[in-house]
Amino acid sequence: MAEKHVYRFGAGIDGVNATEPAGETVDQAKWIVGGKGANLAEMAKIGLPVPPGFSITCQTCVAYANAGNTWADGVLDEIDAARENLEERMGKKLGDPKDPLLVSVRSGAPFSMPGMMDTVLNLGLNDVSVNGLIEQTGNERFAWDSYRRFVQMFSNVVMGVDGDFFEDAINEKKAEKGVKLDTELTAEDLKELTQTFKQIFAVNVDSQAHPEVTVDGCAAFPQDPKLQLRLAIEAVFGSWMNERAIIYRKQNKISDDLGTAVNVQVMVFGNKGETSATGVAFTRNPADGTKEFYGDFLVNAQGEDVVAGIRNTEPIADLKTVPGLEEAGKQLDEIFVKLEEHYHDMMDIEFTIEQGKLWMLQTRVGKRTAMAALAIAMQFEAEGAISREEAVMRVAPDQLDQLLHPQFDPKADFKVLTKGMNASPGAAVGKVVFSAEEAVHCANKDQPCILVRWETTPDDLKGMVAAEGILTSHGGKTSHAAVIARGMGAPCVCGAEALKIDAKAKEVTVSGTDVVLHEGDIISINGTTGDVILGAVPLVRPELTGDLETILEWADEIRRDASRGRIFGVRANADNPEDAQLSRDFGAEGIGLDRTEHMFLGDRKEIIQSFILADRTGAKQQALGQLLKVQTDDFLGMFKAMDGKTVIVRLLDPPLHEFLDNPRDYAVELAHAEDRGESDIQLKARRDLLARLDSFQEANPMLGLRGCRLGIVYPELTEMQVRAIASATAHLKKRGFDPKPEIMVPLIGTVEELKVVREQIEGVIAGVSEQTGVELHIPVGCMIEIPRAAVTADEIGKYADFFSFGTNDLTQMGFGYSRDDVESAFIPLYLNKKILKANPFETLDPGIAKLVKLGVEGGHQANEKIVCGVCGETGGDPDSIQMYYDLGLDYVSCSPYRVPIARLAAAQAKIKSNGGAQKLA
Amino acid sequence: MAEKHVYRFGAGIDGVNATEPAGETVDQAKWIVGGKGANLAEMAKIGLPVPPGFSITCQTCVAYANAGNTWADGVLDEIDAARENLEERMGKKLGDPKDPLLVSVRSGAPFSMPGMMDTVLNLGLNDVSVNGLIEQTGNERFAWDSYRRFVQMFSNVVMGVDGDFFEDAINEKKAEKGVKLDTELTAEDLKELTQTFKQIFAVNVDSQAHPEVTVDGCAAFPQDPKLQLRLAIEAVFGSWMNERAIIYRKQNKISDDLGTAVNVQVMVFGNKGETSATGVAFTRNPADGTKEFYGDFLVNAQGEDVVAGIRNTEPIADLKTVPGLEEAGKQLDEIFVKLEEHYHDMMDIEFTIEQGKLWMLQTRVGKRTAMAALAIAMQFEAEGAISREEAVMRVAPDQLDQLLHPQFDPKADFKVLTKGMNASPGAAVGKVVFSAEEAVHCANKDQPCILVRWETTPDDLKGMVAAEGILTSHGGKTSHAAVIARGMGAPCVCGAEALKIDAKAKEVTVSGTDVVLHEGDIISINGTTGDVILGAVPLVRPELTGDLETILEWADEIRRDASRGRIFGVRANADNPEDAQLSRDFGAEGIGLDRTEHMFLGDRKEIIQSFILADRTGAKQQALGQLLKVQTDDFLGMFKAMDGKTVIVRLLDPPLHEFLDNPRDYAVELAHAEDRGESDIQLKARRDLLARLDSFQEANPMLGLRGCRLGIVYPELTEMQVRAIASATAHLKKRGFDPKPEIMVPLIGTVEELKVVREQIEGVIAGVSEQTGVELHIPVGCMIEIPRAAVTADEIGKYADFFSFGTNDLTQMGFGYSRDDVESAFIPLYLNKKILKANPFETLDPGIAKLVKLGVEGGHQANEKIVCGVCGETGGDPDSIQMYYDLGLDYVSCSPYRVPIARLAAAQAKIKSNGGAQKLA
Repeated sequence: MAEKHVYRFGAGIDGVNATEPAGETVDQAKWIVGGKGANLAEMAKIGLPVPPGFSITCQTCVAYANAGNTWADGVLDEIDAARENLEERMGKKLGDPKDPLLVSVRSGAPFSMPGMMDTVLNLGLNDVSVNGLIEQTGNERFAWDSYRRFVQMFSNVVMGVDGDFFEDAINEKKAEKGVKLDTELTAEDLKELTQTFKQIFAVNVDSQAHPEVTVDGCAAFPQDPKLQLRLAIEAVFGSWMNERAIIYRKQNKISDDLGTAVNVQVMVFGNKGETSATGVAFTRNPADGTKEFYGDFLVNAQGEDVVAGIRNTEPIADLKTVPGLEEAGKQLDEIFVKLEEHYHDMMDIEFTIEQGKLWMLQTRVGKRTAMAALAIAMQFEAEGAISREEAVMRVAPDQLDQLLHPQFDPKADFKVLTKGMNASPGAAVGKVVFSAEEAVHCANKDQPCILVRWETTPDDLKGMVAAEGILTSHGGKTSHAAVIARGMGAPCVCGAEALKIDAKAKEVTVSGTDVVLHEGDIISINGTTGDVILGAVPLVRPELTGDLETILEWADEIRRDASRGRIFGVRANADNPEDAQLSRDFGAEGIGLDRTEHMFLGDRKEIIQSFILADRTGAKQQALGQLLKVQTDDFLGMFKAMDGKTVIVRLLDPPLHEFLDNPRDYAVELAHAEDRGESDIQLKARRDLLARLDSFQEANPMLGLRGCRLGIVYPELTEMQVRAIASATAHLKKRGFDPKPEIMVPLIGTVEELKVVREQIEGVIAGVSEQTGVELHIPVGCMIEIPRAAVTADEIGKYADFFSFGTNDLTQMGFGYSRDDVESAFIPLYLNKKILKANPFETLDPGIAKLVKLGVEGGHQANEKIVCGVCGETGGDPDSIQMYYDLGLDYVSCSPYRVPIARLAAAQAKIKSNGGAQKLA
Repeated sequence: MAEKHVYRFGAGIDGVNATEPAGETVDQAKWIVGGKGANLAEMAKIGLPVPPGFSITCQTCVAYANAGNTWADGVLDEIDAARENLEERMGKKLGDPKDPLLVSVRSGAPFSMPGMMDTVLNLGLNDVSVNGLIEQTGNERFAWDSYRRFVQMFSNVVMGVDGDFFEDAINEKKAEKGVKLDTELTAEDLKELTQTFKQIFAVNVDSQAHPEVTVDGCAAFPQDPKLQLRLAIEAVFGSWMNERAIIYRKQNKISDDLGTAVNVQVMVFGNKGETSATGVAFTRNPADGTKEFYGDFLVNAQGEDVVAGIRNTEPIADLKTVPGLEEAGKQLDEIFVKLEEHYHDMMDIEFTIEQGKLWMLQTRVGKRTAMAALAIAMQFEAEGAISREEAVMRVAPDQLDQLLHPQFDPKADFKVLTKGMNASPGAAVGKVVFSAEEAVHCANKDQPCILVRWETTPDDLKGMVAAEGILTSHGGKTSHAAVIARGMGAPCVCGAEALKIDAKAKEVTVSGTDVVLHEGDIISINGTTGDVILGAVPLVRPELTGDLETILEWADEIRRDASRGRIFGVRANADNPEDAQLSRDFGAEGIGLDRTEHMFLGDRKEIIQSFILADRTGAKQQALGQLLKVQTDDFLGMFKAMDGKTVIVRLLDPPLHEFLDNPRDYAVELAHAEDRGESDIQLKARRDLLARLDSFQEANPMLGLRGCRLGIVYPELTEMQVRAIASATAHLKKRGFDPKPEIMVPLIGTVEELKVVREQIEGVIAGVSEQTGVELHIPVGCMIEIPRAAVTADEIGKYADFFSFGTNDLTQMGFGYSRDDVESAFIPLYLNKKILKANPFETLDPGIAKLVKLGVEGGHQANEKIVCGVCGETGGDPDSIQMYYDLGLDYVSCSPYRVPIARLAAAQAKIKSNGGAQKLA
C-alpha cells in the first residue's frame, strides 16, 4: 500500500464522522499526524465538537525537507483531494465569492512545541471572497478585519515580511482616526488597511525570489486559495527548522528527525461579536495541581490574542456568567470532565465559541510544574484512576529540580515592591536585564539575572534559558512567558501591571512608588506567590515533604522491590559532613564517591605542596604527618554523618601539579625579576623552583601521573590515606558507632595495579587493626574509568569487591575528548551539527555504554558477588539512569541535590525495563 | 604423585645410564630442568660422554623464592638422596679424606642467560679432602689450586665477599715471589694462599648474618660438604633475581616467573696438566654461518678462563694438533656431526679434556648473528635436514635489524687504526666512552657512543645496550662482549690487543702508533671485519640480497599462500617519495600510512601558520591555495614512487597548535618587552598574538582538536587535501600511470563523523573527476584509534572501505597514558615493578588487543569486504605481528626499515597459527 500522507478528522455538514485515526491510540497516532492532529481526531472520535479538517503527516514534512524543500510525486494531489473532500463535507469552497470556506493552517509535531512554529489563519480569503464573507455574516467589519489579519499573517509568516510594517500601518491608521484601540477602527478603516497591507506585501516581497506570487513582474498578494494553501503548508513545514524551534528541541531533547504535521482545519471565529469568545484552559491547576478548572478567555477575540498575552484575560470560571456564553460555558465544564475520564490525566485545551456555539480546537496532556505534577499524580491515584506505578511515571524526574530550587528563606524579612501572577514556582535573585542577549551575556559571566520584559516572544527563548527567573508586566498564566518558564522549571512572575518598562532606556518605573529600576539593579522574584522585591532576598533549599515525599517513597518501594526486577540503589557523591548530611536528608542510601582531593584545598594546600616539593625525606615525613592528622579528622566527620551507611572513599586522584602554581606565570615573574636586576642568589632560587614546578608538568595531564599511579609512585600517600580511614573507623567503632567505609582505588588500568595497591591497603588495615585491637573489615574496590579496565574487567574483578564506573574519565578517554577543553574546542560544533546527539559528559553515550557493559560483564565473570555502581556526573541524569539499570548496575551515585531526581528516575527506569507501569485491574 | 624436584643424568662407574629425562623432548624438559639440564640429559641419552650429575628443577627455585627463600618440606631430603646416589654411582664421596668426589653447581634456566647467574666449582674440597685429592692425583699443586679456587669462588659467589680481596692477595703473593703468572706459583704458594683466602672469608663474612658458617662465634670457611652444597644451591637460586639477570631478562623478554634449575655435576678438570684442556665451540660459524667448526680452547685451564677472555685462546681447529689431545680432538669432530644430526641445528658446546679424556659439559642451540642464522637455515634446508617453513622459523625477525643496520659506505676512504676480532657484524660510529654509566648518559642525550673496555663483564650490560658498538682489547669470539653483542645485534670488535686502555685516566694508547684516544673522541668500528678507525666513516644502509633475499622470498610465499591460512600483507609507513622507494626496495606491498602532516614541516610551516592565524578570509584562502599547490606536488611524487601499489593517505591529524610557537616562551618575551619599555602599539601587537596563540592551547592536546575534528572544524583543509589527492591521481592517470590512493580519515570516534567527512570527500572527488574528465575510484576508510570507535565499529564500518588500527592512540587512550610523557612519568617504574610486562607503545598490550578484536569483528559485521590493517608503531614488532594475525588483520604497516622484519615475522605468525612449521616427510 502506498504511504498515506493525509488523514481526515471531524464531521461534515451531514454530521457523519469522517475521522480517519492514524493509530489505535493517541500515542501511536501522534508520530504520524502529530500531537495536535492525533488529539483532534481523538476528540472527534469521542464525540466532542471539533471543526472538521485534515492532517498532513510528519513523514511528509521530513521527506519534503530531505528533498530540498520539494514535494514528492502525488502528495500535492492527495492534499488537493483532501481539500476537495473538506469543501464537499462543508458544502463550501475556499475563495468562493458567495460563501467562502476559511481554514487555519497549523503545525503539530509529535511533541508539543508551543509557539515555536508557524500558523496561518483565515486562509481562503481574497479580494472576491471577502465579499462572500460579508454576504454570509452580514458583518462587513468582521470580514475586512479577517482579511487584513490574513494578509498580515500570510505576509509575515509565509513570505517573511517584517511584522513591524503592519503594526506601524495600524498605528498610523489609529492616529489618523484619532482612536486608541484596534476595535475602534471601522469596516472602512480596515478595508483601507487591507489595501495598505497588500501594498506592503508588493513592496517587501522579492518578486524574483518568489515567482509564484509574481504578476507582471511585480509581487502581488496571491488571490488563488489553492496557492495560498500550498504556500502556507510549505511555510509550516519550513518552520520546523527555524532557529527557535531547533533551540527548543535541543533544550527539550526532541529529535530533529521527527518533522511536524500540518493541520488544515475549518476556521471558527471567536471574534464574531459579544457571543463569541476564545480561550485556553487546563482541567486542573497546572501550577500547583489544585483540582479546579483553570485558564483564561477573551470575548470577541481570536485565540492568538489569549496566548500572546496582548489583552488581559478573564478567568475561565467567569465564562458561565457572560451573557450569551452561559450554555457554552456549561458544556465546556462537562467536556473537561469527559476529557479527564478519557485521558486519565490533566488536559490542556483550546476552545472557541462562535456566536454561542462551542468548538474544541485542541487538547493535549497539560504541561505542569513539578509541584502540580506531583499533586495531580497523587489525586488521580487517590481517585482510583491510575496505579501507584503509573503515578510514579507521571512525574518527570528532571522537573523535580525546580522543587529543589531555592525558595525565599521563610525567616527573611522583606518588603514586596509589587505583585504579579504566580506563573511558575520557585524564587530567584539577580540583576535586572531587558534583553535576551544581555541575559545570555550575564549567564556567560556567571552573573545571575532576571529577564524583565513587557511580554516574552519565542525570540526571547535563549534569554529565558539563561536567566534565573522571568518577570513580565503583561500576559496571564497561559502567556508565552508562563508556559515556557513552567516547562523549564524557571521561576516566573507575569502580568505585574504596575511595572512600566522602557526597554530602550533600560528603565522600569513602578506605579504607586517612586522606585525606578535600572539595568543591573538586583531584584528578587517569587514565582510561587507572584511577589517582586527590590534587592536580594536570602534563598534556602526546600525540604522533601508532602507529595514529593510520598511519591519518592513510592519510588523507593519500587526500586527496592526485589520481586519485580533488580534492586536499584541511589547513593550520593559527597566530600564533607555537610554534604553527607544533605545526601541523607535527600534519601541517599550511602556515599558512592567521597573525593579525598577536595580535602586538600584551602589551608591544606600548603601542606601537600610542601610534600610534593620537599627534597628531604624529613620534610616529606613532616608533611605526611600533618596530612594524616587532618585526614583522620575528615573521615571521622564523614563516617559519623553517614553512620550505618556505606561511604566509598576514593584515594587521591588528581595530578599532583594541580596543587602547584602554574609554571608559566612563574616564568613570567622570573623574566621580570631578571629585568629588575635581582641578585644571582635570588634568581637561582627562582630558577630552581621553576625547574621543580616544570618537572611536574605534563603535556597531557589527564593521561598522566594521577589516580592509582600517584599512589604507586608515592606509596607513602596511599599509606597515609588508608591509615587515616582505618584509624577513624577503629576510633568510631570503639565508641559504639557503625562506620562502613570502603576504599576505592582510582584510575585502575591493569589488574597488576590493583593487586599491588590492594596488598598495600590490606597491610595497612591489618596494622591499624592490630594496633587498636579493633577488627576491621574494609572492602576494597576500584574505579572503572579507563577503557582498558573496562575490557579487562574479567581480570581486575578478581581483586575488587566493587566496581564504580567513572563515566567522566571513561567518556574522556573512550572518546578522546578532554573535559578541560570541552567548551573551547569542537564539541559545541559537534552538538550543533548533530554529530553528537547529546553532550556525552551529561548523558551517557551509547558507545561508552558498551564499555560499561563489558566492564559489568567482566566484573561478574571474575567475581559473582561484585557490586557495580556509577559515580560519574551522568549518575544523576534520568536518561543515563535508565541505561545504567539496563546495563545491570546495582546503584547510581550523584550530587546530593540530584538524589531525589535519581530516586524517581531509578524507579521509572526499573518500571520501564520490567514491562511498564502496572495498571489498575 | 608428589612433585619430583630432582632428575639424574649420565652414567655411573658401572657404565649404566642413569638418565631420567624430564620430558620427551628437550623443549619439554627445559621448562623443568632448564636448558642446560635438559641438554645434558639429552646428550647422555644419545651416548655422549657427559659427567654424571643431577638437576634440581626450576619449579623448586620458584617455590623457594616465593616462600621467602626457604625450602619446602622434603626437598632437601630429595637432593640428599640424589647426592648419595651420585656418590654411589661414582664410588666416591664428597669430602672424602682419601678419594673425594668434587662437583660443580651451575645455574640453568629454560632460556640461556650466559654469565648472568652464579656458578660454584670444585665443591666438596675441605682441609681434609684436599689431601685425598693430592693422594689420588699425585698433583699437590693442582689440589691446592683447586681448593684455593673453590674458597675464592664460594666466598665471592655464595657469601658475597668482594672478589678484589682475593685478586689482591694473589698479586701480593706473586710480587712476594717475584713471578708474573699465576701458573708460576708453586703448590706451597697456593697452599698459603688458601689459608689467606680462608682468613679473608673469616674477616669479611658477617657471622651474625650467617650462623650456618659460624664456629665459636666466628665465621669460618665451611668444612661440611653437604653444607657447602646446600649453600651453593641456595646462592644459584638467589642469583635468578640479581640485578643483571633481571636486566638481561627484560632485554630479552624472558619472564621472571620461570626460575632457574641447578645442575650438580661431577667435576672434570681441564687444568690437570698439558693433556688436559677446556674449550667452547660452535658446530658452524656463528658470526657468518660458514660450515666450519668454530671456537677456542685453552690447554691446562678451567672453562671459566675461556669464557672470561682472560687468557688469549687458540682456535678449535688446532686442537687435533696438540700432543696428547689428538684423539679427543677427533672424537670432538665426530660429536659435532652427531649433535647436528640429532638436533638439526647449529649447536654451541662446552667441553673439557681431562688427561686426554673428552667430556661434554654443555650443549645448546647456538646463538648466532642474523647473517649466520640465514646462512645456517639455508644450509640445513639445502642439506635436506629441515623444510622451508622450518628454515623460515629459524631466523629471529628482530635479529634481522642488525643486517639492516648501517655498514661502512663501500666508497668511503679511510685508514684502519688497528684491528681486532670481527665478533659481531655491522658498523658503528660514536664517541669513545669507558664506562657503562657514561654510555647510558650519552644515549640519554642521543649521542652515539662506542663502549671501549679491556673486557666486558655482566655489570656492563646496561652500557652495552646503550652504546652503538663495543670494542675490547681482550677476549675471543666467545668472550662475554662477543656473545652479548651478537645477541643484541650490536657491532662488536673484540681482542684488539694493540689498544692499551687506561679507564681511570680515560685514555687509550694504540701500540705502534702515536695515537692517544680520549673520552669523547669519535671512532668507527666494523664488526664485520674487525677494523677500528679514528674519526667518523660514512655509513650506508645495506640492500636485501643473498640469503636474506631468499629467506624473505620464502616468507612472502608463505604469507601469500591462501591455501594455508589467511593472506597476510606487509605495507610501510612512509611520508615522502624517498621513503616510499625504500619501502618498495624492502618489499612493502603498499603504503599503509602516508602522514600528510609531515608534509607541512620546513618552509611550509609558515604557510600553515598563516592559515591558522589569519583573521581575514582572503589571507586564509591565499594560504590554502599555496598548500593545495605543494600538496598536489607531494602526492604526485608519492603516487609515482608507488605506481601500481596502494597508498593510504591520512588526512591532517595533529593539533593545529603543533604548528605554532609556544605561548609560554612568547609570554616571557612579552614580559621582557614590557620591562624594556616597548611602545604601547608594539606591546598591544604582542599581546594580541599571545592571545591568539593561547586561543589554540589545550589542557590536553592529545584529547583535543586534532584528527578528523580538525577537518570538521576547518572543512576547507579537508577539501584542499582531497582536491590535491584527486588532482594528482587524475594527472597521473592521464599520463598512463596507475596511482592507487586511498583516503584515510584519522581519529574517528563516531559514525556520524565519518559520514559527514566521507560525504565531503566524495563530493570533492566527484568535482575533480568532472573537471578533469578522469574517472576516479578512491576508497575511503578510517583510523580506528579511539576506544569508542573500536566498540562501535559495527556502526562505523558501514561508511568505511577499510580500517587501519592506530595502536599509538588506541594505547594512549585505552590506557590513559600520554605518549608525550612516557619517559618522565610513571611508566618506567611500572616496567620495573612488572606492573607492565612490556612497554605497550612497543608491543601490543593484551588489553588493547581486546579493543582491536572488537574493532575487527564490528567492522566485518558492518561490511564483509572491509580491509583491516594496523599502522601504529607496534605494526613492526614481531610479537605484535603474531597477535595481529591472530586478531584477523589483513596486513601490518610499519617503518620502511622494519619491512623485512615484518615480512619474516608475518610468515612466522602465520606458520605458528596454522599448526606450526611443516616438517619434511
